[in-house]
Amino acid sequence: MSASSRILNLAVIPGDGIGQEVVAEGLKVLSAVLPKDVKLETKEFDFGARRYHATGETLTDADLDALKAHDAILLGAIGDPSVPSGVLERGFLLKLRFAFDHHVNLRPSKLLPGVATPLAGQPEIDFVVVREGTEGPYTGNGGTIRKGTEHEVATEVSVNTAFGVERVVRDAFARAQARPRKKLALIHKNNVLTFAGHLWTNVFNKVAEEYPEVSTEYMHVDAATIYLVTQPERFDVIVTDNLFGDIITDLAAAVSGGIGVAASGNINPSGAFPSMFEPVHGSAPDIAGQGKADPTATVLSVALLLRHLGHEAEATRIEDAVSADLGERGDLPARSTSEIGDALAARVAG
Amino acid sequence: MSASSRILNLAVIPGDGIGQEVVAEGLKVLSAVLPKDVKLETKEFDFGARRYHATGETLTDADLDALKAHDAILLGAIGDPSVPSGVLERGFLLKLRFAFDHHVNLRPSKLLPGVATPLAGQPEIDFVVVREGTEGPYTGNGGTIRKGTEHEVATEVSVNTAFGVERVVRDAFARAQARPRKKLALIHKNNVLTFAGHLWTNVFNKVAEEYPEVSTEYMHVDAATIYLVTQPERFDVIVTDNLFGDIITDLAAAVSGGIGVAASGNINPSGAFPSMFEPVHGSAPDIAGQGKADPTATVLSVALLLRHLGHEAEATRIEDAVSADLGERGDLPARSTSEIGDALAARVAG
Ligand SMILES: CC(C)[C@H](C(=O)O)[C@@H](O)C(=O)O
Ligand SMILES: CC(C)[C@H](C(=O)O)[C@@H](O)C(=O)O
Repeated sequence: MSASSRILNLAVIPGDGIGQEVVAEGLKVLSAVLPKDVKLETKEFDFGARRYHATGETLTDADLDALKAHDAILLGAIGDPSVPSGVLERGFLLKLRFAFDHHVNLRPSKLLPGVATPLAGQPEIDFVVVREGTEGPYTGNGGTIRKGTEHEVATEVSVNTAFGVERVVRDAFARAQARPRKKLALIHKNNVLTFAGHLWTNVFNKVAEEYPEVSTEYMHVDAATIYLVTQPERFDVIVTDNLFGDIITDLAAAVSGGIGVAASGNINPSGAFPSMFEPVHGSAPDIAGQGKADPTATVLSVALLLRHLGHEAEATRIEDAVSADLGERGDLPARSTSEIGDALAARVAG
Repeated sequence: MSASSRILNLAVIPGDGIGQEVVAEGLKVLSAVLPKDVKLETKEFDFGARRYHATGETLTDADLDALKAHDAILLGAIGDPSVPSGVLERGFLLKLRFAFDHHVNLRPSKLLPGVATPLAGQPEIDFVVVREGTEGPYTGNGGTIRKGTEHEVATEVSVNTAFGVERVVRDAFARAQARPRKKLALIHKNNVLTFAGHLWTNVFNKVAEEYPEVSTEYMHVDAATIYLVTQPERFDVIVTDNLFGDIITDLAAAVSGGIGVAASGNINPSGAFPSMFEPVHGSAPDIAGQGKADPTATVLSVALLLRHLGHEAEATRIEDAVSADLGERGDLPARSTSEIGDALAARVAG
């Protein structure tokens, strides 16, 4: 959908555990913020543990066709202890990222006023991680021989292409250029992973020449974890590999208010396939169905979704509402999932 | 050397940058703590940037033979901006770890009283990471095709064997069994890296059956970074893959007093080759030669070295001296590298 078309055709995947609850609040806020003349049409999909147990399927070709017919996808969470580790991750989450070529995995980290952080001294945190989403150690290349014996060998192959690295590096430079501080850090481990590291570093340095206003730095992933807890204010935009991005965005979420408020977008900038937006947190089966989950990360994912579709003003309204809501939390008794959703919906509508 | 033999035959590799300065203090404290009847014999090696620039060599077969003739190795730091990234790391540090089969990379994290942490609320931190040191993505397997072109493909292969995983997992269980809390966490990413992940998980679960008193948990590496900043007191012993261990031990060092106090051992438990002990920090060329470096991490590495060689009482004396010294730092003006070394030497001697 472009900003001017009048139907937002949304695929909704509540998924497992708290996914159901938080997605309901995300949709509530989305309905409240949309301009009156935009019609929201949603289609719900039953992916996740339920579908897997009922049919043994995770994501079929027919499913992919059905999802493709939408402007965007909103996902709650996928994963349940009743399903062996890896089945839904590889069979649904990663399959979808790869099938729809979601190569820009966008994860903003902003410590909002009044929000608790495990760090001392309430540092200023406002950066965005551009994580590559379709390469690196996530491709599923590798294998096992002599499984289960004392001679087992298991390999995992990280695959990195100039094509794949350059497009995500370009996306990150463009984002850095558009931000006031115009800073971009490449995070890798090029002193050990020299094959992939040299590719990333060379492509990064080449694209940097086209962005003379963007100041750049390189950092090893191990050192980056130190800076994320000692100098998080140092970061503006980060671009990194799929696995390093997975790791540092969880740490980034932890220091900037927790995964209860961490949003993400799995973006295909070309628009050839719909992009998918989801909270960084998982399905949290231990608190599912109790109205305890914080829907804020999902609501912020809706903001990313709206911005991606060109609804900048509505995205900002949601982010402002979340800031205001979080700023007042210290004074309020704990609220349920739907009470937080109601409060945010009221703010964006008002 | 066994604890009863009367010569400690030590290979010393000061290396680059602050390596020179901190190693001098490490040796000072070592001399001060050793029983009078143990003779310390040291042989210094010039590895690092100097040797590389002078000869183009990083570590030859003859070097390995010379090093092998020692009871242990004390290393300062290797790395200099004048040498391309990866040359000394792969050509010296990793080459030595692989040649001497240093498969137990031991990294304790303890937040000592009075030591600053970036975390709020001064949590209790006292755990040890057992990082695998000879497999995973560190093997150098992989390669590049069509280098420098828009069709470049670079791969990195993580190699994991039942043999390699089992020996390090066994080491970690034995360490957990010997500690009061008897807890062991396996950190991996078995929901995505399913080949290696299943190997690690299966071996871990199999060995766990032999240690009924050790309570175990599994954690994805991304989630582990969250716990390291929100609940670091949760951890007792951690066992993990080479790359994940690299990343989480830097984060662990950051939260438990900084890399200025983080020690490590590259251990070959069989004794077939000498083990190597080194601070986790690097060569810090920006402050080299100014007497600003904190030698504490090196001194604590000397304690690990002594413990490894059976000098438990001397190791503990050093650790107690460091605790006492750190506890008083708040009240003291800043001291130089050698002043800190003098203070620690005086404490262990006294
Ligand atoms: C669930 C898992 C496949 C996923 C990942 O590793 O990418 C998750 O950790 C995330 O960060 O979105
Ligand atoms: C310098 C580098 C090869 C090394 C590693 O990655 O192991 C370092 O980061 C460490 O942790 O000892």
